[in-house]
Amino acid sequence: MTLEICSTVVAIGVVLLAMQTSTAQTAQRARDLGFPFEGQPGRLNSITDVSGVEVGYATIVRGSGDLVAGKGPVRTGVTAILPRGKASHDPVFAGWYALNGNGEMTGTAWVEESGFLDGPVMITNTHSVGTVRDAVIKWQADTGKLNQPWSLPVVAETYDGYLNDINGFHVKPEHVVDALNSAAGGAIAEGSIGGGTGMICYEFKGGTGTASRVVRVGENTYTLGVLVQANFGVRHQLTIGGIPVGHHLTDNAPFSGGKDLYNETGSIIVVVATDAPLLPHQLKRIARRVPLGLARTGSSSGNGSGDIFIAFSIANSGAAGIDGSNTTVESVSNNRISALFAATMLATEEAIINALVAADDMDGRDGHSIKALPHEEVRTILRSHNRLVETSGR
Amino acid sequence: MTLEICSTVVAIGVVLLAMQTSTAQTAQRARDLGFPFEGQPGRLNSITDVSGVEVGYATIVRGSGDLVAGKGPVRTGVTAILPRGKASHDPVFAGWYALNGNGEMTGTAWVEESGFLDGPVMITNTHSVGTVRDAVIKWQADTGKLNQPWSLPVVAETYDGYLNDINGFHVKPEHVVDALNSAAGGAIAEGSIGGGTGMICYEFKGGTGTASRVVRVGENTYTLGVLVQANFGVRHQLTIGGIPVGHHLTDNAPFSGGKDLYNETGSIIVVVATDAPLLPHQLKRIARRVPLGLARTGSSSGNGSGDIFIAFSIANSGAAGIDGSNTTVESVSNNRISALFAATMLATEEAIINALVAADDMDGRDGHSIKALPHEEVRTILRSHNRLVETSGR
Amino acid sequence: MTLEICSTVVAIGVVLLAMQTSTAQTAQRARDLGFPFEGQPGRLNSITDVSGVEVGYATIVRGSGDLVAGKGPVRTGVTAILPRGKASHDPVFAGWYALNGNGEMTGTAWVEESGFLDGPVMITNTHSVGTVRDAVIKWQADTGKLNQPWSLPVVAETYDGYLNDINGFHVKPEHVVDALNSAAGGAIAEGSIGGGTGMICYEFKGGTGTASRVVRVGENTYTLGVLVQANFGVRHQLTIGGIPVGHHLTDNAPFSGGKDLYNETGSIIVVVATDAPLLPHQLKRIARRVPLGLARTGSSSGNGSGDIFIAFSIANSGAAGIDGSNTTVESVSNNRISALFAATMLATEEAIINALVAADDMDGRDGHSIKALPHEEVRTILRSHNRLVETSGR
Amino acid sequence: MTLEICSTVVAIGVVLLAMQTSTAQTAQRARDLGFPFEGQPGRLNSITDVSGVEVGYATIVRGSGDLVAGKGPVRTGVTAILPRGKASHDPVFAGWYALNGNGEMTGTAWVEESGFLDGPVMITNTHSVGTVRDAVIKWQADTGKLNQPWSLPVVAETYDGYLNDINGFHVKPEHVVDALNSAAGGAIAEGSIGGGTGMICYEFKGGTGTASRVVRVGENTYTLGVLVQANFGVRHQLTIGGIPVGHHLTDNAPFSGGKDLYNETGSIIVVVATDAPLLPHQLKRIARRVPLGLARTGSSSGNGSGDIFIAFSIANSGAAGIDGSNTTVESVSNNRISALFAATMLATEEAIINALVAADDMDGRDGHSIKALPHEEVRTILRSHNRLVETSGR
Repeated sequence: MTLEICSTVVAIGVVLLAMQTSTAQTAQRARDLGFPFEGQPGRLNSITDVSGVEVGYATIVRGSGDLVAGKGPVRTGVTAILPRGKASHDPVFAGWYALNGNGEMTGTAWVEESGFLDGPVMITNTHSVGTVRDAVIKWQADTGKLNQPWSLPVVAETYDGYLNDINGFHVKPEHVVDALNSAAGGAIAEGSIGGGTGMICYEFKGGTGTASRVVRVGENTYTLGVLVQANFGVRHQLTIGGIPVGHHLTDNAPFSGGKDLYNETGSIIVVVATDAPLLPHQLKRIARRVPLGLARTGSSSGNGSGDIFIAFSIANSGAAGIDGSNTTVESVSNNRISALFAATMLATEEAIINALVAADDMDGRDGHSIKALPHEEVRTILRSHNRLVETSGR
Repeated sequence: MTLEICSTVVAIGVVLLAMQTSTAQTAQRARDLGFPFEGQPGRLNSITDVSGVEVGYATIVRGSGDLVAGKGPVRTGVTAILPRGKASHDPVFAGWYALNGNGEMTGTAWVEESGFLDGPVMITNTHSVGTVRDAVIKWQADTGKLNQPWSLPVVAETYDGYLNDINGFHVKPEHVVDALNSAAGGAIAEGSIGGGTGMICYEFKGGTGTASRVVRVGENTYTLGVLVQANFGVRHQLTIGGIPVGHHLTDNAPFSGGKDLYNETGSIIVVVATDAPLLPHQLKRIARRVPLGLARTGSSSGNGSGDIFIAFSIANSGAAGIDGSNTTVESVSNNRISALFAATMLATEEAIINALVAADDMDGRDGHSIKALPHEEVRTILRSHNRLVETSGR
Repeated sequence: MTLEICSTVVAIGVVLLAMQTSTAQTAQRARDLGFPFEGQPGRLNSITDVSGVEVGYATIVRGSGDLVAGKGPVRTGVTAILPRGKASHDPVFAGWYALNGNGEMTGTAWVEESGFLDGPVMITNTHSVGTVRDAVIKWQADTGKLNQPWSLPVVAETYDGYLNDINGFHVKPEHVVDALNSAAGGAIAEGSIGGGTGMICYEFKGGTGTASRVVRVGENTYTLGVLVQANFGVRHQLTIGGIPVGHHLTDNAPFSGGKDLYNETGSIIVVVATDAPLLPHQLKRIARRVPLGLARTGSSSGNGSGDIFIAFSIANSGAAGIDGSNTTVESVSNNRISALFAATMLATEEAIINALVAADDMDGRDGHSIKALPHEEVRTILRSHNRLVETSGR
Repeated sequence: MTLEICSTVVAIGVVLLAMQTSTAQTAQRARDLGFPFEGQPGRLNSITDVSGVEVGYATIVRGSGDLVAGKGPVRTGVTAILPRGKASHDPVFAGWYALNGNGEMTGTAWVEESGFLDGPVMITNTHSVGTVRDAVIKWQADTGKLNQPWSLPVVAETYDGYLNDINGFHVKPEHVVDALNSAAGGAIAEGSIGGGTGMICYEFKGGTGTASRVVRVGENTYTLGVLVQANFGVRHQLTIGGIPVGHHLTDNAPFSGGKDLYNETGSIIVVVATDAPLLPHQLKRIARRVPLGLARTGSSSGNGSGDIFIAFSIANSGAAGIDGSNTTVESVSNNRISALFAATMLATEEAIINALVAADDMDGRDGHSIKALPHEEVRTILRSHNRLVETSGR
């Protein structure tokens, strides 16, 4: 994980802020606050509960004050999700879906056609998708990971231009390599980190979040994990635990107040990983359930939102038959798949709320400032609706 | 609207029940009970708030006791939605989406290709789709409503075989004609009526429901209405006003109790109508928002569910250019469409809950019995979560 | 196979014509005439070269003279394709694609969602799809072939209203049962038979046609077979062996002569079967290659055409895991699949031309008469372009 | 149009070659050689026959000899197609389709969702898509062409790694700007130019090609133009004028000879422009007809091929309603659209053959050499099949 240290005194507070986010997050998850969720999470309640999945970040926070294109301030980054870890280039079965396509996820034509995700899933800001894409190819070529003579990387994005000098194109190939090379399993940071650094969700500080579910599928137990880059939502729609908390949290909502109550200009990228052996068409079914989780947080997926989702399964290693041989693969019966649909919905919901919970206040360009979700206020609202889980730890 | 009167004494109670449903529904809507919903409904809170839309039903309730295939008991029917009313055969722009395709909606290949819905949308039980489809063609041919030499009717379905003798194929062409000919605007019946007669939703009695929203789109005000045939859901997921009421309503849940918590074998058909001038690709966007409303009632759209949605706009009459002429049509800017997305989500949610609220208990084949949603218990739960709207009228 | 014998003397000629078609076809295939095709056909050059595939027909030819709706004349029928034969109800992996959706193929939402074709593929006339669909359900229920409590049959169509009393709805449930029960492997009849009875192709008599290819896929040899119901095309586009023979065959083209050179109002249904072990997303890829074969016969797929294709694999028996167990399935590597794409294209082309070659002249309602492809004239044209394969047998 | 002049003596021959290509092409089009095509071309038989469409190229040819990654040899470039010319940033209605998705076209999620192409269509090599994408954003930001705060450029690719040092990433942002700024209407160069520089088609030198058709649509006359970047095909499938000329042109086919007769690893990008007023769903229909033209040149679209197509209409200026206002747009009736389908098929076929005809021999990395289509040999083959159009000019 890269955290760029800027050289100017002005930005020190910002750097500290970012580091604080990183360290603070272990204690700052939605369940810890008593927010209610359904279903059984995995050990870490993280996409990395799915065996072998690795996540890496490069976070670029630098400068403050007025926007000078090409100079900053910079609030952006790159997230890398490697389905079988960075040591493997064995493709995984995958499927994708766009709820609202005001966004980009490169490489999806080949995912759809081949049924495979061949390489990592990368997430960055909207205007750095190209840089990240070509840098992934270079990294694959340099490290012997190309399965065809060419590569068609999967790179997605959300827009951080409210805080970040997005037209300064501050993501560089080395950040991509850093995110890839730093990828690891285990507990991962959330909030303003990696591609999620400059993101805004329901007009609070958003960013990266994760969650997982463990489900019984017939005689088997499978894990399904979700990672989101959350950058969407209008305040009044924010819903936690079924309660429209956004109705009560009307302060510091910089985009609300216009006539168009539902005009959102953000986006959300969702990556779903599972160890359940699903075929490509089944993974597309998984991806189509992500909107159900999104809805549980209140969103109606506005026109300006790029809501694009990809799901993959780390089962069936070698399924691609790169050498041309027929392969033998395992598949969950459709008759038992529903629990995985529910897991997708529930883990998506929780990952979004985790992103909100983990992120701290952030200042960006031109005096723009985004506040973090006020934890205690939300707890108060939930308690007033008899929806707070009163945990012993608090 | 046809209500078949059966000749045997045994069935009288059933018929009365059905009639009671029909008359009772005016006082039995979710808002009247204080269930909370977002957004501004239209005058009737009905799909028929969209100017010109007509709805007709044929309801077939006959017999009781053990199933004798071909004899009964019969708990089924047909619903007809006519976008411009039964007097018109001017096609409307339309789009569709399947969240989970374990179901049927005929005619969608042509909707997708042409961008038009040419004829009514019909809804019936799963095994009577064919009869209804060909009967629509005959009705169109007999009444001069064919716009091509052939017709490709849109007929959808949900499964009523738990209560109904579905393999008795009791829907006949005359029921189709009755539903079409009885179609009318104004307030429409909900619950166990028309195609919704034998349906089950969250293991309570489901069926037909409707709702609408009025939204500002730039300088214009538009109405969007939804009609559902709701036959889906496992009890513990049922959510009303954001509260998982299903957790508390554990009695009379005939399909719960197995190992597979999320195994649903129902379906939901959703028809969205609007007077906003939307192009076909925009109506597909509308249809893709229906799952967001479904999610607000708790569903994760199980494998057994046929969740298929169609949206149409009654604006732009004459858009099909049947005579071959170029046409001029109006379109909402994508930049203002988000309010219609929210309306779709919200009206879908309310239409589902309205179906639950309107339906009464129903007995069907082989002693199968499905209970209605217990209104007062739900009110109690909502009140305990500070989510009941305490209306003056109660 | 049912061939209805009409009672009136007037119709005898028609019946004989139909029977002649049936018997004559063994000697009347495009290759026998020296028309050039690429690739290696299977033993019978038929969809039934794919092991276990069975095809059955019901052909209804009755009456002549002026149209009296409900009376006739009747020129229609039903075709049944059973992927694993009529004794099995084990679903097969499948995928579908619509090049132009002015047509119907019911059941596709579930094919798309589940990845399986569960039951036969039926083809009939446009206005009898419903009757056929519900009759298939009844047949499945009666014979214990339902894999879910409900069924979503795949029924496709093309329009025969130029010759047939299509609004007379002459296809009855018993014809469906006859087509299903008479299904068999081995050589199958082509031309004016089954669902193809009243069809017209490039303004010549069309109908049912078939062809197959045998291809090497890595170390394995697989068979891919195609069956078409061909009812499309404007005369001047007709291309055989790459030669635009339609330019020269200008007589007896009843629909040409208007201003719109490319206005076709027919359709083509294509069913592709293979024993290559392909997953659902790979079968969709197969279905998307059908247009390439269509193009080789000259078509540009006009607005009026319902060009809908389904592909299935008879490999991987038991893949559906009906009992809920995980299943193990085999899959061809994408890296070796291209030969199957070529086979699809080439067999589709040949099946269409086979349908044209097999069909004889047919008279229908209101004095409408459609001529058969003039074999010798085509041979002459091909010879003049050095494209006739001079076979020893002629 | 940029043509990079390299500084080393070694490369002079190569540069001359490239310039020769550029100048030679005006006399080197398929029709000039008597190859037969159907339909009426526009004045220039070019995509630029569609009013306002501008095309620009940057061509990078540098070095020769052994591959040194990052050094060369370089045989690549960038093509820019600007629907309304470079002075406009008014979006155009658009639709897209992937026949085989082993390729990339960024920005398609938003094309599909919004119905608009907002910005140029760019084509380059596979590994430079990212550079081109972000450079387009910078160009849009710098020149005030952003219609949203962000941009989602459409950038497509084919693979030139057989001749070009593709992992050297030689396309730079300045090439993108050059291609955009040099865009113009009028006659455009074909063959080894722009993105098409290093491309190979049917194992002959391929690249950029164009063609157009003029069609009557009811009372109106419309132009439809096509531009291809052709990099696909195995030799034996090459078909010109319906004649499988590839059977006879067996020399200099560097990829043929293996066991897999149909294994192609190339790609084709097709851009269709028209002045016919088509709505987004109609333009998707257009895009779905491109495979029909591809098939006329012989292809079965192998697994390795990225066959991705986009169609746009320059009619209906202002349709996007950027300011949020409702818009009024014109649409061709579906009942008259078929002629545009045929035009798409026919212009695609001719554009591909034009690319082959225009390109000269090219040497690339590591002694790789690709021969041009031998014009006279093809003429001889066509003449022997009575398919050569004996033009007076020759």
